[in-house]
Amino acid sequence: MKCTRCRERAEVHLRAHNSAFCRPCFLFFFRRQVERAIAGERMFAPGERLLVAVSGGKDSLALWDVLADLGYDTTGLYLGLGIGAYSDRSHEKVEAFARRRELPLQVVALESEAAGLAVPEVARVTRRMPCAACGTMKRHYFDTAAHQGGFDVLVTGHNLDDEAARLMGNVLRWQKDHLARQRPVLPPTHPKFVRKVKPLYLLGEYESAVYAFMRGIDYIVEECPNAAGASQLVYKDALNRLEAESPGTKLAFVKEFLRTGQPAFATVERREPEACTVCGMPAYGAVCSFCSLVREVQTKRARTVAASA
Amino acid sequence: MKCTRCRERAEVHLRAHNSAFCRPCFLFFFRRQVERAIAGERMFAPGERLLVAVSGGKDSLALWDVLADLGYDTTGLYLGLGIGAYSDRSHEKVEAFARRRELPLQVVALESEAAGLAVPEVARVTRRMPCAACGTMKRHYFDTAAHQGGFDVLVTGHNLDDEAARLMGNVLRWQKDHLARQRPVLPPTHPKFVRKVKPLYLLGEYESAVYAFMRGIDYIVEECPNAAGASQLVYKDALNRLEAESPGTKLAFVKEFLRTGQPAFATVERREPEACTVCGMPAYGAVCSFCSLVREVQTKRARTVAASA
Repeated sequence: MKCTRCRERAEVHLRAHNSAFCRPCFLFFFRRQVERAIAGERMFAPGERLLVAVSGGKDSLALWDVLADLGYDTTGLYLGLGIGAYSDRSHEKVEAFARRRELPLQVVALESEAAGLAVPEVARVTRRMPCAACGTMKRHYFDTAAHQGGFDVLVTGHNLDDEAARLMGNVLRWQKDHLARQRPVLPPTHPKFVRKVKPLYLLGEYESAVYAFMRGIDYIVEECPNAAGASQLVYKDALNRLEAESPGTKLAFVKEFLRTGQPAFATVERREPEACTVCGMPAYGAVCSFCSLVREVQTKRARTVAASA
Repeated sequence: MKCTRCRERAEVHLRAHNSAFCRPCFLFFFRRQVERAIAGERMFAPGERLLVAVSGGKDSLALWDVLADLGYDTTGLYLGLGIGAYSDRSHEKVEAFARRRELPLQVVALESEAAGLAVPEVARVTRRMPCAACGTMKRHYFDTAAHQGGFDVLVTGHNLDDEAARLMGNVLRWQKDHLARQRPVLPPTHPKFVRKVKPLYLLGEYESAVYAFMRGIDYIVEECPNAAGASQLVYKDALNRLEAESPGTKLAFVKEFLRTGQPAFATVERREPEACTVCGMPAYGAVCSFCSLVREVQTKRARTVAASA
């Protein structure tokens, strides 16, 4: 098979794009898709300060790599979730990447923030699904770091597979409020929030894995051990089968949703957030979901300690 | 496992309903779901004349069986599609059922209507997908038979799996005009159309297969030979996997769509149909899609005959 751009021997075949690329042309294609997403959705401008949430996986490191190459002012943010050896290894990958590329990195470790805040412990003590606990923790520390560091934008590595799976979940239950807000750019709804953007929303996880491989980026290949059985993976599996039968299904699903589907849900109203009475960050209600979770952890831990004393 | 209703030994386990039933209670459950659909969506009233489209498969025969037992005034309509031995066998099943239940049956055979109108020939001559050709032929002959016979309602055996698969296809491409019209009851948009209803839209194909088995209904088990690879089957497969992981997914997908999703698309406008200049039935444009298809068949057949002369 020949490269669609230069007619050299192709290394990658992208059925959804009806294209094949040699190595240099694939890297060009991947960067251009990121640039198109940034420009097409007005994600950010060259002068702005970007905080890039990096997990150590292929998507966020590939994205950080592209953004740095494009000359954007980027700082990485690694949140240590306290998921045993998995977190240790992902932390190492992020540190090594930042060192090699000489890029600034902020690190926050949940277990150092307060006792009992590591994701597995929060999940166990509050009897929540780990992914639910993790989502609340991430949202809070990402928002806080972006606000306190004076960043203009929070950038995440959500890819096309993530967005299609999330859309599938929202559609299967027809969650209109979620459908109204699922966009690659979320404007801040409060002065303490910054804009949130997903420049990889047009690129699948296969594409970012190929990019990371070709660029020699060492990333953590294993899935989070808590992800097994998570509904996102079930949706991804269903979508992968639909994609295999009809390449381009995921891209059309997400792009057509943004173009023609979502406007139907645009009228769904959303309340304005208030200030959390505990941490001062925006909250829907008196206490934000992070602080209620922390309070629940502390109460339940205290009870356990008292019971065992 | 015990019957959810009477505590006798259960024969069927319905995970989506978190229920199990013995034989009499399952038959009660199945009929009640049909009655609920009819009443909840105001499909038809006791005095009305129903034309029931029957293919010889489990769904349409199970539905006809229930409607006859409930005392409705039903006439069956069998459309012979001319798909070789498959059509012969399905015709036999329908005839045998109608004879056994002493119910009136109308039969229309495409190949007797005009030369070249059997589905395989239409598909071959016009280079259409067989399912597309079949859909156009069915719609025309169902509408015409309902209108000419003075029926109040056209009843089809579309089940929950059919409706969920159709919804999935509409959602994956965000076809707003289709989403606006996908309902278990379609009011007539023209004096020559009758109301169209789907009383099985809350019951899955497993349920109608169990009903047909328990009632001793002899139906055609094989799938239409043209269905292999049809996108409906791909959607059904994806939905079956989602259902297996989370029972009730299909029911929630369709019910929530009708309750909260669809109103978002209700404003999509639809033109009023005019009269087809060939057959006089309603058409969007000068000639209805059936008559254009027939004209195309005739033109192309004539060309073939001329070329081989």
